[in-house]
Amino acid sequence: MTETWRKKAGVAWEKAKRAPALACRKMWRVGKDDPRRAIHAVKVGLALTLVSMLYLLEPLFEGIGQNAIWAVMTVVVVLEFTAGATLCKGLNRGLGTILAGSLAFLIEFIAEATGQVGRAIFIGCAVFIIGAAATYLRFLPYVKKNYDYGVVIFLLTFNLITVSSFRVSNVMRIAHERFITIAIGCGICLFMSLLVFPIWSGQDLHNSTVNKLQGLANSIEVCVNEYFSDEAVTEAREESDDEEKSCDEDPIYKGYKAVLDSKSTDETLALYASWEPRHSRHCRYPWQQYVKVGAALRRFSYTVVALHGCLQTEIQAPKSCRALFKDPCVRLANEVSRVLIELATSIEGRRHCSPELLSDHLHDALQDLNKAFKSQPRLFLGSNGSQVSNMLAVAAAQARQQKEREEATGGGGGVALSSAKTDTSALREWKRTRSKKESGERKVLRPQLSKIAMLTCSLEFCEALPFAAFASLLVETVARLDSVMEEVEELGRVACFKEYKRGGEDD
Amino acid sequence: MTETWRKKAGVAWEKAKRAPALACRKMWRVGKDDPRRAIHAVKVGLALTLVSMLYLLEPLFEGIGQNAIWAVMTVVVVLEFTAGATLCKGLNRGLGTILAGSLAFLIEFIAEATGQVGRAIFIGCAVFIIGAAATYLRFLPYVKKNYDYGVVIFLLTFNLITVSSFRVSNVMRIAHERFITIAIGCGICLFMSLLVFPIWSGQDLHNSTVNKLQGLANSIEVCVNEYFSDEAVTEAREESDDEEKSCDEDPIYKGYKAVLDSKSTDETLALYASWEPRHSRHCRYPWQQYVKVGAALRRFSYTVVALHGCLQTEIQAPKSCRALFKDPCVRLANEVSRVLIELATSIEGRRHCSPELLSDHLHDALQDLNKAFKSQPRLFLGSNGSQVSNMLAVAAAQARQQKEREEATGGGGGVALSSAKTDTSALREWKRTRSKKESGERKVLRPQLSKIAMLTCSLEFCEALPFAAFASLLVETVARLDSVMEEVEELGRVACFKEYKRGGEDD
Repeated sequence: MTETWRKKAGVAWEKAKRAPALACRKMWRVGKDDPRRAIHAVKVGLALTLVSMLYLLEPLFEGIGQNAIWAVMTVVVVLEFTAGATLCKGLNRGLGTILAGSLAFLIEFIAEATGQVGRAIFIGCAVFIIGAAATYLRFLPYVKKNYDYGVVIFLLTFNLITVSSFRVSNVMRIAHERFITIAIGCGICLFMSLLVFPIWSGQDLHNSTVNKLQGLANSIEVCVNEYFSDEAVTEAREESDDEEKSCDEDPIYKGYKAVLDSKSTDETLALYASWEPRHSRHCRYPWQQYVKVGAALRRFSYTVVALHGCLQTEIQAPKSCRALFKDPCVRLANEVSRVLIELATSIEGRRHCSPELLSDHLHDALQDLNKAFKSQPRLFLGSNGSQVSNMLAVAAAQARQQKEREEATGGGGGVALSSAKTDTSALREWKRTRSKKESGERKVLRPQLSKIAMLTCSLEFCEALPFAAFASLLVETVARLDSVMEEVEELGRVACFKEYKRGGEDD
Repeated sequence: MTETWRKKAGVAWEKAKRAPALACRKMWRVGKDDPRRAIHAVKVGLALTLVSMLYLLEPLFEGIGQNAIWAVMTVVVVLEFTAGATLCKGLNRGLGTILAGSLAFLIEFIAEATGQVGRAIFIGCAVFIIGAAATYLRFLPYVKKNYDYGVVIFLLTFNLITVSSFRVSNVMRIAHERFITIAIGCGICLFMSLLVFPIWSGQDLHNSTVNKLQGLANSIEVCVNEYFSDEAVTEAREESDDEEKSCDEDPIYKGYKAVLDSKSTDETLALYASWEPRHSRHCRYPWQQYVKVGAALRRFSYTVVALHGCLQTEIQAPKSCRALFKDPCVRLANEVSRVLIELATSIEGRRHCSPELLSDHLHDALQDLNKAFKSQPRLFLGSNGSQVSNMLAVAAAQARQQKEREEATGGGGGVALSSAKTDTSALREWKRTRSKKESGERKVLRPQLSKIAMLTCSLEFCEALPFAAFASLLVETVARLDSVMEEVEELGRVACFKEYKRGGEDD
C-alpha cells in the first residue's frame, strides 16, 4: 500500500517538476504562433497603467475622484484583441450606458413624486420589469448577435444608478462623472487599439480566407496523390502517424479541418470587421462576402471530407483499377488545387483573377477524365489478374471474332473495332487462351467464358464501385469549386479588386 | 426628386408601421421556441429585485453600505441561462476575486514600505506587469476554455483594489465588505439557477444529441427517397421552395445543418455541464463522451452532405439506372435511419440499445444491396431507352444465342444463363430487333451492334458514375454509422445506462 502510494507520489513529483517547463513551452508557443498576442498583452498593460494614472497622479485625481474606478473597469472589459472588437464593445458600452442613464433618470423623476415607501416599491418593480425585459431581449437572434454586450451593460448601469440613487441626492452629478470616466476609459481603449500597433479583424478574416483556400488546395492534392500512390507508402505513413499525433498531423485533415469549423469564427470576425474604419474611403468593404466565400468553401470541403473518406474506408478499389485512371484524376486534382491557389493569391494580392484562364485548364482536365472514361469503358470493370477476362473484353473479342470470320469470308474490310481500341492484358490473355483452345474446345469455351465474365463483372463492379465514387466526388469538387469561384469573383467585384494583370507567373 | 423622396418616405413609413408587429411576432417566437427563455428572464428580474432589496431596505443597508452595488453587478454578470454556466461563471468570479485580492494585498504590503512617489511608481509597474501577464495568459487554449472570465475578473478586481487602495487607508475593510457583497450576489445567483426552475446544460446537451440523431435519421431517409422518387415531384418541390424559404425549409438540409455547426455549442454545453452537480451520485456523468458522439455524428453528416450533393448535382444518373437499385438502396437507407432513431430513443430513455439486433438488420440490408449488384451486374450499365441495347445485354444475348445454337445442334441442356437472369427491356428489345432482322441482316447487325454497344457502354458508364457514387456513399454512411454506434455504446457504458429490455417496440 505504502509502496503504491510512494510510486504515485513519485510520478506526481516528476510531473510537477516537468510542469513549469511544459507551461513555459506552451506560453512560448502561444506567442510564437501569433506574435500579435504578445503585443496585445503589452498594450493592455500600458492602457491599464495609463488609466491608473488618473488615480495615482495628484492633479488628475482631484477632478475625477472615486469614479476613476469606472475608467479602469472600462479598460479591462472593453479593450479586446482586434480593433473591430474593441470598437464594437466600446460602442455597445457607450450606448448601453447612455440609454440606461436616461431611463434611470426618467424613473427617478417619476419616483420622486411618491413617498419613501412607495418609491422603494416603485423602484423594485421597475428593476424587475426592466431586468426581465432586457434579459428576454437578449434571446432575440439579432440583438444577441450585435448588441448582447450592450444590453448587459444597459442592465448593469441601469440597476447601479437606480439603486444607488435611492440614497444619494445628486444623481445627475454621479451620472455626469461616471459618464466622463467611462468616456476616458473608452478613449484610452480606442487610442490603444486603433493607433498603437492596431490589429484588424478584417485583416484576420482576409488572411484566414487565403489560408483556408491554400489549405484546401493542399488537402485535395495530397488526398488524390495518396489515393493513387503505392499502398506500402500509405501504410508506412499511417503507422508512423499512429505513434503519437494520429490525425492531427495528417496534411489532408489539417487542410480542411480549419474550414469545417470556421463558421462562427468567420461570422464574429466579419461582425467586428464591419465596425472597423478601414477601406471605407473608396468602396465599402464587403465583409459579408467573405462570410459567403467561407460558406462556399465549407460546402466544398464537405466533398473533400468525403474524398478523404474514400482513402480511409476499408472497401478499397483494386490498385489496377486506380492505376488506369491515375493520370487524368491526378491532373484534375492538380488543376483544382491550382485554381484554389490562384484564387488564394488573387485574394491575397487584392486583384481579380482571370476566370477564363482558370476554367479553361479545368475544363481541359475534366474533358481528359471524361475521355479516359469513354476511351476505356471496359477498364472500368478492371482487369483482375486472377480472372481470365472481363465482360466487355468478351464482347469486344466476340465482335472481333465475328469480323475476322466475315473478313475470312470476304466481308467488309477495315481494322476491327475492338483491336483498335483494346489492348489490355485481359483481352490478350483471352485471345491467347482462345488461340490455344480454338480448335477443339470451342463449344465448351463460349458458355464458360460467359459465365466467368458474368461473375468477373459482378465482382469487379463491386470492387470498382469505390473508385467510381472517388471519381464522381472528384468531379463533384469541380462543381463546388465553381460556386467558390463565383463567390470569389463577386468578392473581387464588390471589394473593387485591382484588374488582373499578366504578371511574372507562368500559366 | 421630391417624388422619389416621398416614395421612399412612404416605403419607410410602411416599414415603420409594420415594424412593431414584426418585432412582437419575433419576440413571441423566441419565447415559443423555448419557453425556458421567458422563465429565465423572470428569474433574472427576480434576482435583481432581491439584490436591490439590500439597498432599498433600511436595516440591510446599514450593514452593507455602498458596496451593495457589487452584489448588483455580480447578479447581472453571473446569472446565466443554464445552471452550469452560472456555476462556472460564479466560481470563476469568486476565484478571480480572491486571487486578485490576495495579490493586491501583497503588493500593497510591499508598497507600504516605500515613499509616496516610489509607491506610485511601484503600483504603476505592478499594474502594467500583472495586466500584460494576465492578458497573455488568456491566449493559452486551456485557460481560454475554462478560466477566461476568471482572468478578466482577476484583472478587474486587482486593478480596482490596487488603484483605489492608493488613497484609502483601510484596504482590508474594503476587501472584506466587497467580498461579502459579491458572495451575497453569487448566493442569490446560485439559489436562482439551481433551485428555481433550474435549466441544466447537461439536459440541453442530452436533448440536442437526441435531436441531432433524429434529424440525421430523417435527413438520410428523405434524401434517399427523393433520389429514387420521380423527378417531377422533386422539381415541383424545388420550385415551391424557390419562392421564399429556399433551402432553409429543405428537410434534408435541416436535418444535418444542426449537426454540422454543433462543435462549439457542444463543447460549451459539455463544459458547463461538467460544473453541474446532477448525476454525480451514482457514476460521474460523461459529458465529454457526448462531445465524442457529436464528433462521430459530424463525421457521419459529412457523408450525408455528400449524399445530398448527389441530389443537387447537375450530373445525374439516368432514372432507369436508379430504378433498378431502388429497393435495396431504400431498404439500406431505412435501416440506417432506423438504427439512428433506435440510438436516439436509447439515449433519450437512458437505456442501452441492443447492438446485435441493430447490426443484424443493417447487415442484411447491406447484403441485399451487395446481392443486387452481384445479380445484376449488367444493370449497372443502365438501359437507356433511346439506345438499342447495352454491352452486357449484348454479351449475355450472344451467349444465349450461342447456347440456342448449341441446343439446336443437340448441345448441353439446361436453361440459358442469360435468360434466367436477364429480363430488362433492353435485352427484350434487342431480342425483338434480332428476331425481326434475324434472317437477312444478321451479318450487318453484329458489328453494328458492337459499335453501338461500345458507344452506349462508354456513355452509360459516365451516366452511371453518379449512381455508383451515390451507392458507394450510402455504403460509406454505414461505415460511419458504425463509429457512431460505438461512441453511443461507450456512452451507455460510461453513463451507466439501464440494461436493454425488450419493450413494447417491435423489432
